[in-house]
Amino acid sequence: MSKKSPGDFIKQVLGRPVIVKLNNGADYRGILSCLDGYMNLAMEQTEEYIDGQLKHKYGDTFIRGNNVLYISAQPKK
Amino acid sequence: MSKKSPGDFIKQVLGRPVIVKLNNGADYRGILSCLDGYMNLAMEQTEEYIDGQLKHKYGDTFIRGNNVLYISAQPKK
Amino acid sequence: MSKKSPGDFIKQVLGRPVIVKLNNGADYRGILSCLDGYMNLAMEQTEEYIDGQLKHKYGDTFIRGNNVLYISAQPKK
Amino acid sequence: MSKKSPGDFIKQVLGRPVIVKLNNGADYRGILSCLDGYMNLAMEQTEEYIDGQLKHKYGDTFIRGNNVLYISAQPKK
Amino acid sequence: MSKKSPGDFIKQVLGRPVIVKLNNGADYRGILSCLDGYMNLAMEQTEEYIDGQLKHKYGDTFIRGNNVLYISAQPKK
Amino acid sequence: MSKKSPGDFIKQVLGRPVIVKLNNGADYRGILSCLDGYMNLAMEQTEEYIDGQLKHKYGDTFIRGNNVLYISAQPKK
Amino acid sequence: MSKKSPGDFIKQVLGRPVIVKLNNGADYRGILSCLDGYMNLAMEQTEEYIDGQLKHKYGDTFIRGNNVLYISAQPKK
Repeated sequence: MSKKSPGDFIKQVLGRPVIVKLNNGADYRGILSCLDGYMNLAMEQTEEYIDGQLKHKYGDTFIRGNNVLYISAQPKK
Repeated sequence: MSKKSPGDFIKQVLGRPVIVKLNNGADYRGILSCLDGYMNLAMEQTEEYIDGQLKHKYGDTFIRGNNVLYISAQPKK
Repeated sequence: MSKKSPGDFIKQVLGRPVIVKLNNGADYRGILSCLDGYMNLAMEQTEEYIDGQLKHKYGDTFIRGNNVLYISAQPKK
Repeated sequence: MSKKSPGDFIKQVLGRPVIVKLNNGADYRGILSCLDGYMNLAMEQTEEYIDGQLKHKYGDTFIRGNNVLYISAQPKK
Repeated sequence: MSKKSPGDFIKQVLGRPVIVKLNNGADYRGILSCLDGYMNLAMEQTEEYIDGQLKHKYGDTFIRGNNVLYISAQPKK
Repeated sequence: MSKKSPGDFIKQVLGRPVIVKLNNGADYRGILSCLDGYMNLAMEQTEEYIDGQLKHKYGDTFIRGNNVLYISAQPKK
Repeated sequence: MSKKSPGDFIKQVLGRPVIVKLNNGADYRGILSCLDGYMNLAMEQTEEYIDGQLKHKYGDTFIRGNNVLYISAQPKK
């Protein structure tokens, strides 16, 4: 993973499946569609997992940046 | 969902039914009437759900942006 | 409810009975007297509800904006 | 209570007995001596109530603004 | 206590025994040595009380301002 | 460890195995790939530990700076 | 302890053993190597104590300033 800044990491996972962990403990899995300078992000085919259990399927979702704990690239299937 | 920025996602759901999750865990469902640059938003026909249970019907409601966790488009009925 | 911005919503409910929910979970019901750009607000005939139970009647109350979760118009009696 | 801004409310209660609720749930009752633009305030004859129980009598107390939930005028005895 | 601003209150208690309550609930008692514009403060002969129990004697201590709930003048012995 | 500023410490551990503790209590262990001025950081071969138990292996992960509690150099094996 | 500002206190303890308490309740004990204007600090020979129990020995550690509750000089052995 050649990266010079954390921003480069994010660019590499745009359009790819990711796990977004929020500071309320829930995970949001789906396609990272885009994000802005405040770390606000839009996801597609979003699934909400709480304690590893699928709770909701939301489709298009806007997530506010200041609650994001981490964004992790899902391994390619 | 063609979007270039998370803001575009929000524009696409203006006037449509959405679920707004706040960081106290409650969901607010209704019509997203408008929002501003601080993510403050006004909703119509608002319903408050706590742990999936309908608790209140509020009609017009102003929600302060810094408590918003995510905004998700409700699937069209 | 014709609104162009969330601020317009607030102007429409000035002087009217509202419910103000704070992020500590309590509701404050009364007449929304005025508010400023930081969402600090002054209320009259304020009643404090905790878990739906009336706890205190305060009369004039100043509420600090950064604890406000939402402001909802009380249906006209 | 004729007020044009929440700040006017505060001016009206300077020098009067108030209840100051902090976001840790405690109430501080006493004479509102003064406050500044950050909502930092100084109180005299301060009493600390926790769950409605008098815990301490402090006399002069400086309270930091960002923990203030609300300030309410105590009814005149 | 003649004060015009909360800052005046603090100047009056510099060099005197104070109780500093932090938003984690602990009290720090000792001599208020100095403080800066961010409410960072240095104390001497500092004692840490948790739930009213003396836990530690620290001597010189630097306390970060944004955790300060209130500063109260200890009554002169 | 000759350092003049905390930033120097971080430079010394770039590309090395580190433990990153977040304020939700979880540890993230892996190679510190890069970080920016907001303390946002990218890690490789990331492992998530909760209460000392390995929970997930994530590979490339972006962690938002404002949740970072500390970064500690892992002793070289 | 002659100090004019809290910053002077910190300079006096640079290179000396300190206890750094974070707002998650843990203590970090070690040599205060350096710190910057945001209260980010680097420590050497760091030991993590939780509820007074030694949990980890970390060596060089970078601690983010906004989680620091207080810094206290350890009495010289």
